Amino acid sequence: MSQDKILLAHGDGGRLTRSLIEEIFAPAFRNPALAPLADAALLKLSSQSIAFTTDSYVVKPVFFPGGDIGRLAVFGTANDLAVMGARPLFLSAGFILEEGLEMETLQRVVSSMRRAARSLGMKLVTGDTKVVERRSADQIFINTAGLGERLAWPSLGKALLPGDELLVSGTVGDHGISVLAARGELKLSIPVKSDCGPVWPMVKALYRAGVRVKWMRDPTRGGLAGALNELVEHKRLGVRLFEEKIPVRPAVDSACEALGLDPLYLANEGKLLCIVAHGQAAKAKKIIREIQAGRNCEIIGGIVANPKGRVIIETRVGGTRILGMPAGAPLPRIC
Amino acid sequence: MSQDKILLAHGDGGRLTRSLIEEIFAPAFRNPALAPLADAALLKLSSQSIAFTTDSYVVKPVFFPGGDIGRLAVFGTANDLAVMGARPLFLSAGFILEEGLEMETLQRVVSSMRRAARSLGMKLVTGDTKVVERRSADQIFINTAGLGERLAWPSLGKALLPGDELLVSGTVGDHGISVLAARGELKLSIPVKSDCGPVWPMVKALYRAGVRVKWMRDPTRGGLAGALNELVEHKRLGVRLFEEKIPVRPAVDSACEALGLDPLYLANEGKLLCIVAHGQAAKAKKIIREIQAGRNCEIIGGIVANPKGRVIIETRVGGTRILGMPAGAPLPRIC
Repeated sequence: MSQDKILLAHGDGGRLTRSLIEEIFAPAFRNPALAPLADAALLKLSSQSIAFTTDSYVVKPVFFPGGDIGRLAVFGTANDLAVMGARPLFLSAGFILEEGLEMETLQRVVSSMRRAARSLGMKLVTGDTKVVERRSADQIFINTAGLGERLAWPSLGKALLPGDELLVSGTVGDHGISVLAARGELKLSIPVKSDCGPVWPMVKALYRAGVRVKWMRDPTRGGLAGALNELVEHKRLGVRLFEEKIPVRPAVDSACEALGLDPLYLANEGKLLCIVAHGQAAKAKKIIREIQAGRNCEIIGGIVANPKGRVIIETRVGGTRILGMPAGAPLPRIC
Repeated sequence: MSQDKILLAHGDGGRLTRSLIEEIFAPAFRNPALAPLADAALLKLSSQSIAFTTDSYVVKPVFFPGGDIGRLAVFGTANDLAVMGARPLFLSAGFILEEGLEMETLQRVVSSMRRAARSLGMKLVTGDTKVVERRSADQIFINTAGLGERLAWPSLGKALLPGDELLVSGTVGDHGISVLAARGELKLSIPVKSDCGPVWPMVKALYRAGVRVKWMRDPTRGGLAGALNELVEHKRLGVRLFEEKIPVRPAVDSACEALGLDPLYLANEGKLLCIVAHGQAAKAKKIIREIQAGRNCEIIGGIVANPKGRVIIETRVGGTRILGMPAGAPLPRIC
C-alpha cells in the first residue's frame, strides 16, 4: 500500500477505498463469488435449509496470546453456525477502522482471517469498510455474518430429559484470562493462551459417528454458567454440574482466585458444550478426544428434573450451590 | 428498561444483555426464526440461488432529515440485494454501542429498523450487541448483513453494448447534502431530506414488466460518478451522460455550488441506477415513474464504444468532460 496508515479517504468509496479492496482484501480472500466486487455476492447453495448468524468483534487488545480479532471474527461466527448443527460455508466481513490505524495492523488481521477461513473451507464472499475519525472507534472493529448448511441430525433440538449428559470439550476460561492478561490489567504474567479456534471438527465428528447430540453451544461471553442458565431458564428441568469434573488450567484457576473471578463465567472461544442422550456420553467423549482441540474433553454433569430452571454445582467438598446467571462486574471487550 | 443509558454490562452476555434482548430487540423484531434467540437462525429458503451482502453504518448524526442510522441500515443492505436482482428476505444486525448511549436513542433506532424491515417484508432473524467504553465508539454503529433470493432475470448480467441506455430513478445527492446539513457543517439551512428508502419496489416492477435490465446499482458512497466509473473501469466501452438530463434538486445544486461539491459524487440512499437494453428505456422510465420514489426518473445517458473505460459528460453548454473516479476531499461517515 502506498499509505502506511488508514486515512478517512479509505472509507469514502473512491480511489483509496478501491486500493484497499484491491491490495488488501481481494488478494486475501480471492474466490469466484467475491471476484466481481459487486454490491452482493451471488451464491448457489446445495440445500435450502440454512443457518444464518452474526457477531461483532471489539476485542481489546487486537492481538493476544493464541489469537487476534481477525481469527476471532472468523471462528466465532463459524462456531455459532457449527453449534446450531450447520456446516460453516460463507462469511461476510464489515470493517470499521479508526483513522490512523497502522496499515500493517489491518494487513496482519486480514491475513489471520484468511488463514482461519481457509482452515475451515469457508469463503469470505462479501465485505464493507468504513473509516471513522480518531477516537470515534478503537483501532478496528469487525462484524462477520455467517451462512451454513444444516446437517440432517434428527436428535438435535429434541426435548431434553433427565439423565441426558453434558460434556465440555476442554478447559474453560482460557480466552477470558488470556485477554485480561494481554491488557496488562492483571499485573502478572500468566502462561495461558486463548482457545480461539473452530469447534466444527468436533461437531462434524460427532455427526458422522451418529452420536445422539440434542443441544450444543459455544460458551463465549457469560461462559459455561451463562450458556447453561440460558438453556434452563423458564424450563421444567435443571442442570447439575460436578465441579471436580470441569477442566480448568491451574494457571487460570490461580489467576481467578487472585482476581476474585470464577472460570465458569469467563469467555471461551473454541470450546464445545454439548448435551447427548442418556448412554451416549462415553462415545461422545471418545470421539471429541480424538481431535486435538478436544483432548481434555470431560463429562461434567447432566440434566436433572430438579431444581427446575436452575444450574446447580456439586462442589469439590461435597456441597452444592446455585450457579446463577452472570451479573456483576462486566469484562468489556473480551470478544 | 430499568436503565436509561447503556452500561458496559449491557454487553457482557449476562442479565443486562438479556434484558436488552428481551425488552428492546425481541419485541421489535419478533418472528419465528428469531424467537429461540439461539446462536444462529435456522431458515428454510425456497431457492438455492441467493444473494448475500453486508454493510456497516456509522452515519453522523444518528438522526437526519428523512432518516436515521436504523432506517439506513435496513434499506442500505436491502438495496444492495435488490440491485443484484434478489428479493430482500432476511437481515442480521450487529450493534456496537458506546457506553452512556441514551436508551431512548437505541429504542428510536430499533423502532425505525422495525418499520423499515416490515415495509419490505424482511425479517431480522439474528443479531448481536457489543458495548465499548466512552470514546471507543461514537454513540451507535450498526452492521447489517442481508440474504435474498435471486430473481430469474435472464438479461441481468448480460454483456453491455453501445446503445444500451442508462436511467436514474430520481434526483441525485439528496442524502449527502442532507447529512452534511444535519451536522451543521454547512452553516446554512437547506430544505433537503435524505432519499433513504428502498429501491426494491422499482426493481420488482421492472422485473414483473419483463424489462431487459442488464445492470443495476444503488449509487451510495462515491455517488453516480463512483458507481459508473467502477462499471466501466478496465472495460472496452464507456458511459456518456447528458448533464441536463440528470435530475438535481435546486437546493442541492446551490448548496453544492456554495461548497465546491459536485452532486454527481454525493451519496444517495434510495436511488436506482440501471442500464437497459437498447430500445427499453422509455418503457423502463414509465414503470419507474409509476412508483412514488421514482417519479423523477430520467434517461440520463448510455453506453458508448468510445472513450473506453471512461465516463464522459456532455455539459449544459455543449462541451464534454471526463467524470473521473472520486478522489480528493472525503466526506466521512455519510452512511
